[in-house]
Amino acid sequence: MNEFELIKNYFQKLSKKNSNSLYLNDDVFFDKKNKFVVSVDTYLEGNHFINFKKPYLVFKKILRASISDLIAKGVKPKYYFISASGNKKSFSKSNLLKIKKSLKEEQNKYKIYLSGGDTIFSNKLSFSITSIGISNNIIYRNKAKINDDIYVSGNLGDSYMGLLILKNKINFNNSLKSYFINQYYKPDIQIKLVDKLKNFANTSIDISDGLVTDLEKMINNQKLSYKLNLEYIPISNNLKKIIKIKKLKKINFISHGDDYQILFTASKNKRRIIKNIASKYRIKITNIGKIQSINKKPSIVNNKNLEITLKNKGYLHEFY
Amino acid sequence: MNEFELIKNYFQKLSKKNSNSLYLNDDVFFDKKNKFVVSVDTYLEGNHFINFKKPYLVFKKILRASISDLIAKGVKPKYYFISASGNKKSFSKSNLLKIKKSLKEEQNKYKIYLSGGDTIFSNKLSFSITSIGISNNIIYRNKAKINDDIYVSGNLGDSYMGLLILKNKINFNNSLKSYFINQYYKPDIQIKLVDKLKNFANTSIDISDGLVTDLEKMINNQKLSYKLNLEYIPISNNLKKIIKIKKLKKINFISHGDDYQILFTASKNKRRIIKNIASKYRIKITNIGKIQSINKKPSIVNNKNLEITLKNKGYLHEFY
Repeated sequence: MNEFELIKNYFQKLSKKNSNSLYLNDDVFFDKKNKFVVSVDTYLEGNHFINFKKPYLVFKKILRASISDLIAKGVKPKYYFISASGNKKSFSKSNLLKIKKSLKEEQNKYKIYLSGGDTIFSNKLSFSITSIGISNNIIYRNKAKINDDIYVSGNLGDSYMGLLILKNKINFNNSLKSYFINQYYKPDIQIKLVDKLKNFANTSIDISDGLVTDLEKMINNQKLSYKLNLEYIPISNNLKKIIKIKKLKKINFISHGDDYQILFTASKNKRRIIKNIASKYRIKITNIGKIQSINKKPSIVNNKNLEITLKNKGYLHEFY
Repeated sequence: MNEFELIKNYFQKLSKKNSNSLYLNDDVFFDKKNKFVVSVDTYLEGNHFINFKKPYLVFKKILRASISDLIAKGVKPKYYFISASGNKKSFSKSNLLKIKKSLKEEQNKYKIYLSGGDTIFSNKLSFSITSIGISNNIIYRNKAKINDDIYVSGNLGDSYMGLLILKNKINFNNSLKSYFINQYYKPDIQIKLVDKLKNFANTSIDISDGLVTDLEKMINNQKLSYKLNLEYIPISNNLKKIIKIKKLKKINFISHGDDYQILFTASKNKRRIIKNIASKYRIKITNIGKIQSINKKPSIVNNKNLEITLKNKGYLHEFY
């Protein structure tokens, strides 16, 4: 049973009278009347972050992961709350100073404020972050239209390469390593897009679990399919370099998640405005495919229009 | 270092530009402009609930503990979010059905709605609950006035007796046992008071950590002291009976927390309105002492006005 089945089978009905929750089938909660948007997520050591050797970086990572949910919905984050569970070692004075420094920098960068939370003694390290933004509207899931273009912001796969390096599963002796590790800990979330997104996106989601997993999640209640062009899926020059040197395959790097880029669809007539905004604000936005009829099989194709098999769509939270 | 020191030394400054957070020195977060109030708490097995043998009851307990924070501030809870960390056994189908039933009953009882959250695989069982209510104003901490009466709703100590029974630290062979265990799992939180409280309370808090701990927390930024009359502190007839039979001392049962009753202060001229509301809505509200000048020592006195020593003020979250 995975996360979706768990919600559908047991808990969806509990939110039925409460349309604000979007029936637990979106990434955020939206109270339209009172204009606030809520995102709740838990981050576990060894799962959502590799370990706690670098508290300063871990807090950047999880805070950005949390507010990324709001940003992808066109909502500027404003407040955050942290519930921290950990032991004495995790919350040593030296670590607390690092956490404080990290949070302070993130607050200044994203104009967000620590607004509450609590601290619990436990040998298992985990953090729950609740982020809240104020907004009159949001971009919902499941609002894609047939023939919509599919776009993604920034680059994908850098964070996954960073994780492989941290896990010693790949090695190369140069300064590129720190580039990827940085991308793992400090994803370039697209705060600059937050105010613009509503002008053109029909539906959107942030890529936390993986490009294809999140794409399927974004349209999971729609009778629609998709086609992605591998060639167009944006990766950094650094990742291109490593893929070439190590004779790897691009397809194995684009859907592992932790990217925190924005995935959205838009009608064809929005191409010009998207291009203009991308160029004006210097945001990389790439058209990577399109939404198509359910009669066509979901697919990723190469530059010869041949279908490519994806081994791993991304991270799915499995329980049993 | 305890929770207060942790916040004061490391994190209070991070909320300075954000007066909504009440500088992390209140039990809730209040966005005055957008009229919403947030409470975030984590509940850990073996700490905040004894074990997970009764998921149905544990969920009643932690959900009531969460919304109790809002209710004590005069705010009706509306939405809740649950982040659940546990293993396959904790989230077996049978347990999920019990959790679902429990949540459904609580939703109907308190008119609240499941609005989001997430589920994480972990061998350490814990739950974070975020509760949100809509309100134009709240009752703040640190607004007591000198000579205010101190009041508490309901009875204290039943939950602690329930915990002692569950831990096999006390035993008596009769139906009373199930009464106390029920009080541990299903505290009588005072939802009926939520709309009335603002009419008379100057300051308020819910008793989760213990009467005296929470009283001191409620006025921790004020140069004030207090005097409580042990005789007036309300306990149930069942608890009176056990204390008598087992030759226990009342003082050892009134400040262990988990009561989820409302502690508040009010001016003397509110005595009549409080009495009327208590009688009209059949809510037990007891005047247990008064706020006094800082020049007088905080004290609990017996019916001969002699000071009684309290061994344990309640639960303080210690880190190191």
